Amino acid sequence: MVGAGQLARMTQQAAIALGVELRVLAASPDDPAVIAGAAHLTGSPESLEDLRALAADADVVTFDHEGIPPAHLATLEGEGVALAPPSSAKLFAQDKHVARRELAARGFPVPPFAFAQTLEEAERFADAHGWPLIGKLSRGAYDGRGVFELGDPDAVAGALSELGPFLLEPRLRLERELAVLVARSVTGEAVAYPVVETIQRDAMCREVLAPADVPPELVEEARRLALDITAAIGATGIVAIELFLTDAGLLVNELALRPHNSGHYTIEGCVTSQFEQHLRAVLGWPLGAPDAVAPTVAMVNVVGPEDGSDPAARIEEALSVEGAHVHLYGKQARPGRKLGHVTVCGNDLEAARAAARRAAAALEGNS
Amino acid sequence: MVGAGQLARMTQQAAIALGVELRVLAASPDDPAVIAGAAHLTGSPESLEDLRALAADADVVTFDHEGIPPAHLATLEGEGVALAPPSSAKLFAQDKHVARRELAARGFPVPPFAFAQTLEEAERFADAHGWPLIGKLSRGAYDGRGVFELGDPDAVAGALSELGPFLLEPRLRLERELAVLVARSVTGEAVAYPVVETIQRDAMCREVLAPADVPPELVEEARRLALDITAAIGATGIVAIELFLTDAGLLVNELALRPHNSGHYTIEGCVTSQFEQHLRAVLGWPLGAPDAVAPTVAMVNVVGPEDGSDPAARIEEALSVEGAHVHLYGKQARPGRKLGHVTVCGNDLEAARAAARRAAAALEGNS
Repeated sequence: MVGAGQLARMTQQAAIALGVELRVLAASPDDPAVIAGAAHLTGSPESLEDLRALAADADVVTFDHEGIPPAHLATLEGEGVALAPPSSAKLFAQDKHVARRELAARGFPVPPFAFAQTLEEAERFADAHGWPLIGKLSRGAYDGRGVFELGDPDAVAGALSELGPFLLEPRLRLERELAVLVARSVTGEAVAYPVVETIQRDAMCREVLAPADVPPELVEEARRLALDITAAIGATGIVAIELFLTDAGLLVNELALRPHNSGHYTIEGCVTSQFEQHLRAVLGWPLGAPDAVAPTVAMVNVVGPEDGSDPAARIEEALSVEGAHVHLYGKQARPGRKLGHVTVCGNDLEAARAAARRAAAALEGNS
Repeated sequence: MVGAGQLARMTQQAAIALGVELRVLAASPDDPAVIAGAAHLTGSPESLEDLRALAADADVVTFDHEGIPPAHLATLEGEGVALAPPSSAKLFAQDKHVARRELAARGFPVPPFAFAQTLEEAERFADAHGWPLIGKLSRGAYDGRGVFELGDPDAVAGALSELGPFLLEPRLRLERELAVLVARSVTGEAVAYPVVETIQRDAMCREVLAPADVPPELVEEARRLALDITAAIGATGIVAIELFLTDAGLLVNELALRPHNSGHYTIEGCVTSQFEQHLRAVLGWPLGAPDAVAPTVAMVNVVGPEDGSDPAARIEEALSVEGAHVHLYGKQARPGRKLGHVTVCGNDLEAARAAARRAAAALEGNS
């Protein structure tokens, strides 16, 4: 696995049960997956040599993030390395412009967009959709980084000269944000998880509620869309499809081709966790059932508090919350950094959400 | 944790979520917990120096087996090492004679027993209870090792001269074997898990069915007994209380003061797994809910087949069984060795049991 963050760390937990040896490419021996005991190489995903070293003798190479140069992935494939997902699919999570363009070309519903290379193009787009616009860098944007609001032509001109071309979309009026996980095996077998609602704050996913409280037709449409996209782009492993629910219906926001924050709830909430499922899918093993094991599940992220203090020091208070499943990532505490999450299963969503929030707040020192 | 077998391995999985650094004393770097990534020292529980090295800087020292010389534990305590459980409680799992005698002295129901030092004592016991008798070594007996049937005085005489004194009990007529896990924190907080039925074959636990199909009064009595024993002996961490259900009611067979095979089902079957709970208990953190999350759960052990082949090579067939949670321990395959287990949750116990058996049989090459 390229990357050794919390996604690799939780994949390591799943790998232990399956007897799979997970080897990660880590930036540092202090990375979350390394301190959890995954075998590791220290190196950079920017280095083709490091990627080659990781791939040596591996059955398959997969990813816990998107930040690997696409050209390196193509090179590895040319050298016979099995990548899951393949580079052609991974690109849909690496380049927002490619993803938008290619999904639109295949007839999937996406928000209106333009790839602005000049001020004139941006102004034409604003004429059609109104100000303000949202600018998004094609590459390297996540958790709100690389996403910016543009109130007027001056702002566009400034951004273009500073950043170069970027993706434009209108400021959409969202009813909700939804997400669907799909697992697709290298054999082609695929399953979709329940549709969840994701709650963002400061452009970062903060809560996930499963299942999303939306009509059954919409659930069916979202799952169908997710399965169709995954198959159309030839993705393998876990794919997270983030959807906007607007008054114009469902629109595909973006894809992640890896285990995803919107699927952490599956560890306790579904028959097969996204992490075990990812391993099964990339290894070509039979997929497990994606079904929920509880009527409702709430997941709340634990984010580093402003004072820089470490949530781990407050774990006892969090564990005193009935039913709270606490996951800490072993990361150095920094304000605004995702340091863990809490999941609560239950019969009543609001009660589960309140309990998960209580435990997360305790960890953040806000109780 | 002293020991690095499958119990330490599954404790490592739980430690990752809690951000706890688990360090194990391993016989070899190939031990199950070490290959799962637990920090480790290589050494022997027979060596006081190795135990001291393990304990250095640890918040608490706990165990994944019973085979540590009691005198070493007392020495460590004298040196200020925090042991959970304490040596005085651990002895109840290390010495069957002490356990029987002390439990009987405290008024807990145990099978009739004698500690046979001479043929005459054994014959007196047989006069009261009939032949054959069951002999059990006080120390070092588990999974059927150190347990033997004695058909007549000659057999007793032979065993005494070969093995020295041992515990005697009658061959009991068992209706069922039950087990109850209790978690007791170093703070004194304690919770009991559901009462389960354990199915032995060749004197080794092969299946666990949760909950046991026994009347509610019996469940209540078993849980009460387990909680009372745990408190009476001052145990901390997970304690497994194995019970015989006979026509004379419940009798305490033996205790394990560590996570236990009868509790593997709790990983998927209960709100808090025995492994997480053990960590919470020995660290003095609030205990989690022990409640079941499914109406029924079946666990079947995977045992090394006679041909010496490795179940890991057959994992795909096992994973194709709907709902099968496969756990492999990363141990070298040997006939008769516990190499993994399969858990299935469901609404119908016989269906869950059949599915778990199917997956386990696939792993054992018997499908």
